[in-house]
Amino acid sequence: MTSIAVIPGDGIGPEVTDQAVRTLDVLGFGLVFDVLDHVNADTYLKTGTALSDADFDRIAASGAALLGAVGDARADTAYARGVLLRLRFALDLYVNYRPARLMHDRFSPLRDASRRPIDCVVIRENTEGLYTGIGGRLRPSTSQEVAIDSEISTRHGVTRILDFAFSVARRSVCMVDKSNAVRHGGALWQDCWALARGRRPDVQTSHEYVDAAVMKLVHDPTAFDVIVTNNSYGDILSDLTAELAGGLGTAASANINGATGFGLFEPVHGTAPDLVGTGTADPIGAVLSAALLLERLGHDDGATAVRAAVDAVVAAGQVTPDLGGHLSTNDVGAAIRARL
Amino acid sequence: MTSIAVIPGDGIGPEVTDQAVRTLDVLGFGLVFDVLDHVNADTYLKTGTALSDADFDRIAASGAALLGAVGDARADTAYARGVLLRLRFALDLYVNYRPARLMHDRFSPLRDASRRPIDCVVIRENTEGLYTGIGGRLRPSTSQEVAIDSEISTRHGVTRILDFAFSVARRSVCMVDKSNAVRHGGALWQDCWALARGRRPDVQTSHEYVDAAVMKLVHDPTAFDVIVTNNSYGDILSDLTAELAGGLGTAASANINGATGFGLFEPVHGTAPDLVGTGTADPIGAVLSAALLLERLGHDDGATAVRAAVDAVVAAGQVTPDLGGHLSTNDVGAAIRARL
Ligand SMILES: CC(C)[C@H](C(=O)O)[C@@H](O)C(=O)O
Ligand SMILES: CC(C)[C@H](C(=O)O)[C@@H](O)C(=O)O
Repeated sequence: MTSIAVIPGDGIGPEVTDQAVRTLDVLGFGLVFDVLDHVNADTYLKTGTALSDADFDRIAASGAALLGAVGDARADTAYARGVLLRLRFALDLYVNYRPARLMHDRFSPLRDASRRPIDCVVIRENTEGLYTGIGGRLRPSTSQEVAIDSEISTRHGVTRILDFAFSVARRSVCMVDKSNAVRHGGALWQDCWALARGRRPDVQTSHEYVDAAVMKLVHDPTAFDVIVTNNSYGDILSDLTAELAGGLGTAASANINGATGFGLFEPVHGTAPDLVGTGTADPIGAVLSAALLLERLGHDDGATAVRAAVDAVVAAGQVTPDLGGHLSTNDVGAAIRARL
Repeated sequence: MTSIAVIPGDGIGPEVTDQAVRTLDVLGFGLVFDVLDHVNADTYLKTGTALSDADFDRIAASGAALLGAVGDARADTAYARGVLLRLRFALDLYVNYRPARLMHDRFSPLRDASRRPIDCVVIRENTEGLYTGIGGRLRPSTSQEVAIDSEISTRHGVTRILDFAFSVARRSVCMVDKSNAVRHGGALWQDCWALARGRRPDVQTSHEYVDAAVMKLVHDPTAFDVIVTNNSYGDILSDLTAELAGGLGTAASANINGATGFGLFEPVHGTAPDLVGTGTADPIGAVLSAALLLERLGHDDGATAVRAAVDAVVAAGQVTPDLGGHLSTNDVGAAIRARL
């Protein structure tokens, strides 16, 4: 028996998480679900606490966690940070694993999509960079104000994310930085990159500055397999790869501690307030995040089955409006489950 | 008589700059050219100096500067920084103005290009952010190494770039940041943004987080007019908009001190070592940069004429291979001049 902490969250989070949980339920594998449906913006607005220490401990004690989406226009940005970034940092989930695969030519925003099907993974460093919160504001709100956010890179952090990238490479690894302008961390990434490449002479490698990487991804996404980069560039590049793969609705992600194996799995999309209650939210991103969870728990066969079921419903056009279909969130989920 | 400092630089820099200078020459306007063709990687490799103080003073004393491209695989990154970033910072060229306009549907990488023609301008803050070089490495090359690059935002710097963006808005201004994760500078940008919007209630505005902005640009670039953002995001977004407008070959840019009016004009592309000497480098990015220079000097009619000539050669298919043509760099330049 493995306990899965479930944080449905806000907006469409509960709707898509429900489909992910039911998908896992059909497969069995002895998973039990500990649903924390009070972790949401309402609670934050009432109590001022984004995630209580008791809830944090419950999640940390679970075998893995599944998250829907957190955020709310009524709450300040400290709320989303207090849930998502707290979990990433406090559980040292240093790998943000974001695969992007074009499931059907017609989903691509690119011309000649059949010749440019994206199939890559962004490996984003998830515990350093510009996301530590370290910095401050001097003379706030005056004309002399200076604000500083420290972009922090450590040899420990950079080395482990590079090594993780090599461990999941199929064809190649491309390291993305801005070492021609952002000097100090840039030099550290370059040093660690040279060493990591040396440890894996069997894997083909390349390097791009982030601005050039964006252009090349649009120009020819097939050139990329595994892309490894820092927290900020990973945030940006993984939204781009998701868009090139057909939009945010289907993008899945895993936040992993590569040492303990603990993972927090979430669709890349947000709360999508305009879709709440319409029954049109795409559940595929959440369901594919559940597939990543199965993989992490060692149930590769289950993950493969979920992906095959998703591919089949997509091929059959059993999809929500974002993918050109007219099925509801629940109908897509049911169609996936029917194929398991 | 206005003296224009010309820095052809490296790679294809001299080839495209030659076309830009000849375009300006045809138009007259009393421009004289002070060519600094010794500012290049050979000089840097020989002397260790990227840009001498004497050369810096010559450029600073000119009426405007035109740059080709700087960079060389034999030189370290301090070389490009020592020329380009030094000029941007020391001359306080705080506006990086990067327009992107799809000149012909067939240049777009997007499907249904005719419904999604990009026509926007990225206004990039050019003198702060992650580009100051401030930071360092603690315990370099040891397993305990920590590197820090400070992302610096000042009320002075953010306010002036936001106001500049409003001053060039046609339809709307979209401010892009990552204030949900990068807190301190994020809060400063948000404060300054609220004030800048208040000063220009006549202009339509929107806000996007940088990851969402990238998705929306690919999804529907027509949604954007003026985009204003920090140094790093401006670097990334302007390469994306250039790609969506048909590739780097035609993208022009201006580095401007909004107070003195001094400008350094350069194509967005780099040195393109593989194209050197082939005669296939696209001169349009450099020629359109010259048009921006004319505009800055108050010769709006000249700028309009150059743009019309470029549009005409593009419509006639008189273009280099990157745009599907078979003309040489010089032939494209000659075709543009023939229409002036
Ligand atoms: C060469 C590099 C430092 C530069 C930058 O990032 O500013 C370039 O990419 C640009 O956009 O002008
Ligand atoms: C909500 C935000 C802080 C978050 C991030 O930037 O990490 C999100 O964009 C993501 O990519 O998971």
